[in-house]
Amino acid sequence: MPHAPFDVERVLSALSLEEKASLTSGSDFWHTTGVERLDVPPVMVTDGPHGLRKQAQDADHLGLGSSVPATCFPTAAALGSTWDVDLVRRVGEALGRETRANDVAVLLGPGVNIKRTPLCGRNFEYVSEDPVVAGDLGAALVAGIQSQGVGTSLKHFAANNQETDRMRVSADVDERTLREIYLPAFERVVTKAQPWTVMCAYNKINGTYASEHHWLLTEVLRDEWGFEGLVVSDWGAVHDRVASLAAGLDLQMPAAGPRPDQEVVDAVRAGRLDEAVLDAAVRRVLHLVRRALPAVTGADAFDVDAHHALAREAAAAGAVLLKNDAVDGAPLLPLAGAEGLLVVGEFARTPRYQGAGSSQVNPTRLDDALGALRSATGLDVPFEPGFTISGGPTGDDDALRAAAVEAARAAGTVVVFLGLPGPDESEGYDRPRLGLPDNQVALLDAVADVNPRVVVVLANGSAVSLPWRDRAAAVLETWLGGQAGGAAVADLLLGSVAPSGRLAETVPHRLEDTPAFGSFPGEAGHVRYGEGVLVGYRWYDTRGVDVAYPFGHGLTYTTFRYGDVTAEVTGEGADVRVDVRATVANTGGRPGAEVVQVYVRDPEASVLRPAHELKAFAKVALEPGEQRTVAFTLTARDLAYWHPGLRRWAVEGGTFVVEVGASSRDVRGTATVEVVGEPLWGELTAWSTIEEWLAHPVGGPLLSEVLGGDDVPQLDEATAAMLAQTPARVFASFGLAPLTVEDLDALVEKARA
Amino acid sequence: MPHAPFDVERVLSALSLEEKASLTSGSDFWHTTGVERLDVPPVMVTDGPHGLRKQAQDADHLGLGSSVPATCFPTAAALGSTWDVDLVRRVGEALGRETRANDVAVLLGPGVNIKRTPLCGRNFEYVSEDPVVAGDLGAALVAGIQSQGVGTSLKHFAANNQETDRMRVSADVDERTLREIYLPAFERVVTKAQPWTVMCAYNKINGTYASEHHWLLTEVLRDEWGFEGLVVSDWGAVHDRVASLAAGLDLQMPAAGPRPDQEVVDAVRAGRLDEAVLDAAVRRVLHLVRRALPAVTGADAFDVDAHHALAREAAAAGAVLLKNDAVDGAPLLPLAGAEGLLVVGEFARTPRYQGAGSSQVNPTRLDDALGALRSATGLDVPFEPGFTISGGPTGDDDALRAAAVEAARAAGTVVVFLGLPGPDESEGYDRPRLGLPDNQVALLDAVADVNPRVVVVLANGSAVSLPWRDRAAAVLETWLGGQAGGAAVADLLLGSVAPSGRLAETVPHRLEDTPAFGSFPGEAGHVRYGEGVLVGYRWYDTRGVDVAYPFGHGLTYTTFRYGDVTAEVTGEGADVRVDVRATVANTGGRPGAEVVQVYVRDPEASVLRPAHELKAFAKVALEPGEQRTVAFTLTARDLAYWHPGLRRWAVEGGTFVVEVGASSRDVRGTATVEVVGEPLWGELTAWSTIEEWLAHPVGGPLLSEVLGGDDVPQLDEATAAMLAQTPARVFASFGLAPLTVEDLDALVEKARA
Repeated sequence: MPHAPFDVERVLSALSLEEKASLTSGSDFWHTTGVERLDVPPVMVTDGPHGLRKQAQDADHLGLGSSVPATCFPTAAALGSTWDVDLVRRVGEALGRETRANDVAVLLGPGVNIKRTPLCGRNFEYVSEDPVVAGDLGAALVAGIQSQGVGTSLKHFAANNQETDRMRVSADVDERTLREIYLPAFERVVTKAQPWTVMCAYNKINGTYASEHHWLLTEVLRDEWGFEGLVVSDWGAVHDRVASLAAGLDLQMPAAGPRPDQEVVDAVRAGRLDEAVLDAAVRRVLHLVRRALPAVTGADAFDVDAHHALAREAAAAGAVLLKNDAVDGAPLLPLAGAEGLLVVGEFARTPRYQGAGSSQVNPTRLDDALGALRSATGLDVPFEPGFTISGGPTGDDDALRAAAVEAARAAGTVVVFLGLPGPDESEGYDRPRLGLPDNQVALLDAVADVNPRVVVVLANGSAVSLPWRDRAAAVLETWLGGQAGGAAVADLLLGSVAPSGRLAETVPHRLEDTPAFGSFPGEAGHVRYGEGVLVGYRWYDTRGVDVAYPFGHGLTYTTFRYGDVTAEVTGEGADVRVDVRATVANTGGRPGAEVVQVYVRDPEASVLRPAHELKAFAKVALEPGEQRTVAFTLTARDLAYWHPGLRRWAVEGGTFVVEVGASSRDVRGTATVEVVGEPLWGELTAWSTIEEWLAHPVGGPLLSEVLGGDDVPQLDEATAAMLAQTPARVFASFGLAPLTVEDLDALVEKARA
Repeated sequence: MPHAPFDVERVLSALSLEEKASLTSGSDFWHTTGVERLDVPPVMVTDGPHGLRKQAQDADHLGLGSSVPATCFPTAAALGSTWDVDLVRRVGEALGRETRANDVAVLLGPGVNIKRTPLCGRNFEYVSEDPVVAGDLGAALVAGIQSQGVGTSLKHFAANNQETDRMRVSADVDERTLREIYLPAFERVVTKAQPWTVMCAYNKINGTYASEHHWLLTEVLRDEWGFEGLVVSDWGAVHDRVASLAAGLDLQMPAAGPRPDQEVVDAVRAGRLDEAVLDAAVRRVLHLVRRALPAVTGADAFDVDAHHALAREAAAAGAVLLKNDAVDGAPLLPLAGAEGLLVVGEFARTPRYQGAGSSQVNPTRLDDALGALRSATGLDVPFEPGFTISGGPTGDDDALRAAAVEAARAAGTVVVFLGLPGPDESEGYDRPRLGLPDNQVALLDAVADVNPRVVVVLANGSAVSLPWRDRAAAVLETWLGGQAGGAAVADLLLGSVAPSGRLAETVPHRLEDTPAFGSFPGEAGHVRYGEGVLVGYRWYDTRGVDVAYPFGHGLTYTTFRYGDVTAEVTGEGADVRVDVRATVANTGGRPGAEVVQVYVRDPEASVLRPAHELKAFAKVALEPGEQRTVAFTLTARDLAYWHPGLRRWAVEGGTFVVEVGASSRDVRGTATVEVVGEPLWGELTAWSTIEEWLAHPVGGPLLSEVLGGDDVPQLDEATAAMLAQTPARVFASFGLAPLTVEDLDALVEKARA
C-alpha cells in the first residue's frame, strides 16, 4: 500500500492530543502507530544488528519462532576485529538493501556499548573495548545502512554493559569515565553518521533509568552532540512514559496498551507535561515515518549470492590469527595442502556463527568449515567430532575423544574446532565462565599429546581464556562469523585469503585479571564501575597485568616493518593539531594488510590517565615489497581528558608521546611533542588550598602579598607540603599567618573581580 | 586549681543560650571553653596517639615548636604488628598515666582508619588493613588509656584514608564497603571500650562532610552502636557549626572566633536548630569536663624508665621478621655474636622512629640501634653510614657507599639499616613512592655484591616494595618503633628477644598491584573506592595477585606445628555460633609466640565475597615442646555480609570454611561447616524478576498458578535463563504468557498481604 509523502507540520497541527499521545508508542511489537485519517501509516522496525530479523506474522517476539530469511553477516565482534571502515560500510549497505527489500523502516542496530567485561552475554553484538574502534566502525555501519534510505538505531544508550539484571541495574559511574569510555563511541556515530534513531538502554545510570535520563537523552545527545533523530526505548525500557517524554524519549516500544497514552494526555491537561515536549516527540516520529516511506513502499530486492559472498569476505577479514608457530621449520599456517589433514571438533560441521537472543537471524544459507574445506580441496578430508557441544554424558565424550586421538595419531596436521556452546552467549544473561568447556580442553590435550601439528580454530562471541594455548602451534580466532564463516575459515586455512583481523578486545589470562572483576555484575541493583577509565587495554597496560594476547594484536602470512614516526604540532590549547606520519612496508613474501595503530601517551597529568589510548588507526593492504606512508591528524580532543572539576574536555599542556604500532604492546615507533595547554584553573574560594591560590594568576599574587611577599619564612619540606594542601580557610582559622578569616573573605572577592 | 565536681544538669539549666553555644567550641587551640561563674573549667586535650604531644605554652600549633617530653611509644603501625591485645592495653595504661600526669583530659587517639593504600601519608598512625586487627587493638589501647581516668578520641571517623586533599575530598564509597571495611574497626572500639570521644574526619563521605553527616554521627554511631561519648571535630573540620550540631557533632575544635557561636544562637532563636540538640551537645561537653576533673586536677607522675622499658618491649613485639634464610647452613638470625659484625646505614645512628605531623612526640630519651648493639655486646661494633638520608649530592653517597663496601668485604655479617626518609611519611600529604630511595638500594646492592651475609633492618611507617629482597638473607621490618626501637632491634638481632610481630598489612610487589591504584587519590574532590570490599589481603587473595609478603606473615626463631582444626555449629541464622578449636605446638628449639589466625571463607554467596576474611586471632607464647589448644567463638556477624538491598547484616545459609593458619596465605588447617541461613527475600513488586517471584514463599506459588501450574511449556536453557532475569512487569507487557499487567498488579497486592 503506497503512501504519499505527508507534510509533517500539517499532520502535527491536525492531530488531537490523544492521537499525539498514541504516536509516542508502538501499535504492536514491531510497528509504530499510524493515523489512518491523515494517511500516516505505521512503519515496521526489526531487530539487527548483523542481519535482519523480521518475524513471520505468527511468531512470538523473543526469537523462539521463525523469521524471514536474511543474510547473517558476521556479528559485531567479528566486524569489529576487521578494523576495516570501508568493508564495514559495505556490509552496512547490504544490510540496508535487505532492510529495504523487506519494507522495513529501521534496522535496530548497531550496538556500540563498550566491552567492560568478557563475561557480558551480549558482547558478540558489540564492537570493541575501545571507543575509537567501536565509534568508527559503528559510524561506518550506520552510514552504509542509511545510504539505502532506511534507518538505524544506535544502541543501547548508554552504559548497558551487562545482561545481569539489565532491566533494573544502576550503572554507578563517574562522569569522566562516561565521557572518556562509555559515551564517545555513541558520540562518534552521532556526529559522523546521524543515525535515524538512538535506542535508550534498559538500565539506570547513577540511579536514573536511561529512559528517563534528561542529561543523557537531551543535554548530551541533542544539545551537545547535535543528534537530530528520534530516541526509541529498548523494548520494555519505559517505566513512566510521561517522565520519559520529559527526559527526551520520543517513542515507547513495543505497544504498551492504552494506559500510558492516557497518562500522557492527563499530564498535558494537568500541566505536568509541556505539550511542546509532546509535539517535539510526535514531530520526530512523523519525520521518521515520512523519510521511511520510499523504503517501506518500494519494490526492492537483494542479491542473495552477492551478500553471501560479502559475508564471507567480512568473516575472513574479522578472524584474528593469534599465533602461528613454526613446526618442522615453517609456520603451520597456511596449510601446505589438504593431504594428511584431519578435521576435529563438532563445530566444524555444526557451526557456531551467531549468538542467541533478539539478534538471531534465519540465514539464507549456512556454510560449515568441514564442507568448505572438502569442497575447496576436492578431497574427502577426514573428520572426527571429538566432543559433544552440550557436554552431554561423559561416556559419549570419552568415546569421541578416543576416536579423534586415534585419527590424530596418523594425521599430518590436525585442525581442531573449539568454541563456546551456544547457551553460553546470549542476550538476557551473562556468560558463566571465561574458559572453554572442560570436554573441549580435554580433547585438545589428548590430540596434542599425539600430534604436534595442531591448529585450533575458535568460535566464540567474546574473549575466552586460553590456558591451553601452548598445546597448539596455531590459533585462529573467528568469533561468531555469520553464515559464511565456515567458508571464510577454509579460505584462511588454505591461504587463499590472508588473515587481517586484529583484536578489538584484549584476551586475558584469567577472569581475576579482568578490570571489572570484583564489581561486575553488581549487587542489589547497583554495579560500581570501580575501575573507572581503566577498561580493556587501558587497565592491563596501566596496571602492568600480563595478558594472553593484547588489544590490537593479530598475525598474518607476511611481515611488516615500520619506518620513522613523525609528529608535527600546530596551534595550541583547544586548537592544537598534531600531524602524524608513519611508514609501513610489507617485508614478507605474501600480500597482507597491516592495521597501523596510533596511541597517545600523556606521561604526566594532574589526573590519572591510562598508560596510552588508541586515537586513530588505518588498515593498509600491501603487496610484498610495497611501502606506504600513512598520515593521521590528531586534534585537541585526542590529547584531552575530561576535566572532572571544570566538566569539559581539557588539554593540559606538556609532553605527549605519539606511539605507532601493531598492538597496544607492540609499539614500533614513537614521536614526542610538546603541547601548549589551556588555562585550567577554577574559581577560587575560601576552601581553595594554598597551592591552588598560589597557582592562580590573580589569587596567587594577592595571597602572597598578604602573607608578606618575599618575607615569608622558609618552611621545611614536610610543612610546606602539608600547607600546600590546606584550604586557605583552615590556614586562616589556625592563626598561623597574618591572614584572618575576614581577610580571606575579602581576598576571595578581589580574586573573583 | 582544683575544681569541685559539678552537677551537669544544674549547670546546663543555668547556662544562657550564648554560653551554651560557646561551650560547643574550643576556647583556644587545645582547650574546651569554661564557664567561670559556674565553676566549669576549660580542660585540655592533646595530640596522640602513640605519645603525648602537649605543646609548650609558646609553641605554634602544627608541631613545628616544642612540646613537653613524653614517652614516644611505637607508632600504631608497629603496635598493630604485635597482634597482642594485652601488650597494647599495657601501652595504653602507660599513655593514660602520662596524660594524667600532664593534667590533660583527652589524648587524641587512637586512629583506626583502614590502610586502603600503602601510600597514605598517615598510615603509620593507623593499625591495619583489616578491621578486626584494627578494632581489637584499638579497643585495647582505648581501654588501657581510659583505665587511668582520662579520655581518648577515636579517629578519624570515617573513611579518612588519604592525606591528599584530605580537608575536602569526598570518599565515594558504597554502604556495603563502609559497613564491612571502613566502619567495623570503629564499631568494635565503640562497643568494646566506649571511648570518651570520637573525632570526626575532615573529608566528605559520598558528598557530605563527616562533620555534617547525620547518618554517620547519629544514626550509625549513637543509635546503632550505642556510643555514649562526645563527638569532636578534627581540627578545622567544621564548615558550618549549625549543620554540624544538627548532624550530631558536639564540639568544634580549635577555637573558631565568635562568628560560629553567634550563628548557633541565631539558628536556635530562628527555630532552625532545635535547642534540645544544642542542649544534648552541651550536656556531653559538660559530662566530659566533669569526668576529667580528677585527672586534670590531681598530682600525678609517671615512671620514665618503666615506660621506656615498655616502649622497648612493644617495639620488639611489633617488628616483623620477613625472611631469615640460612647462610652457611644456619639461619642468619639471631646473630651468633658481634664478632665480625658490621653495621651499615645512617638509620642505625639516626633512628627513624616516628612520623611527621601532629603525632610527633618530644621523646624522654632516644635509643639508636648502633649504640644499643655496642652496649649489649660490649664491643665497638664498626659502622659505616653508607648513604645520606636526604639523598643529597650524588658524590657524597658514592663516597659513603664505597666506604661501606670496603668495610663489608671483610666483615662476617653486615646489618644494613634502610628506611624511608622522614619527609616521605607525614600527616598532611601522601607518600610519593612505594619503594626505598635509589641511593639506599644502590648501597644494599653494592654491599650484597661483596658479602652474602646481609641482614636488612627496615624503618618505615607503611609497607615498602622490596624488589631487592633477594639480596638480603634476612629482612627485619621494624616500622617506626618509637624511642626505644633501637634497643629493641638489638634485642631481636642478638636473640635476647624472639621476633613475634606479624604483618598487619600486605607487602605488595608493585604499586600497580595495590587495590586503590587507579582511583587513589582521586580527582576534582572525589575519590572512588572502586575496589569495594577488596581491600588489603581481600584484594590480593581474591584476585590471585602475587605479593612479596602476605598479611599475617612473620617468622621467629622457632617453628610451630598446627594440629587438627575443629568447628562446631550451634543455633542458626542470626543466632548461629561456631566454636573453633585449634592446637598449636612449638616444634623448634627456642621459645616463641605464634599468632593463630582464623579466617572465614564463604565459597558461594549471592554477593561477591572476599576469598576469606580474618575473624579472630590469638597470640600464643610457647616454650619449646609446649602445645596449646586455642578456642575461638564465631558469631553470626562473623559469617554475615552486609546485605546491600536489605541494608542489614545477613547470614546466607550454606557451606562456610573456617581456615586456621599463620598468614592469609599459610592456612594450616580447615574445618567445613553447614549453616542454616536467614530468610533473605525482599518485598515483591511488579519490577521483581520472574526468578525473584518464583523464589518467594508467597509470590512463587501465586505466579506459578497464573502461569498455568504444571502446564507451563518447557523452555530451552537460554530462554529460561533470559526470562529468569526479566521483571514480571516486562514479561506481562510482552504478552508472552497468560499474565496481563492488570493481573500482575493484583498479584503484587496478594503477595504483600
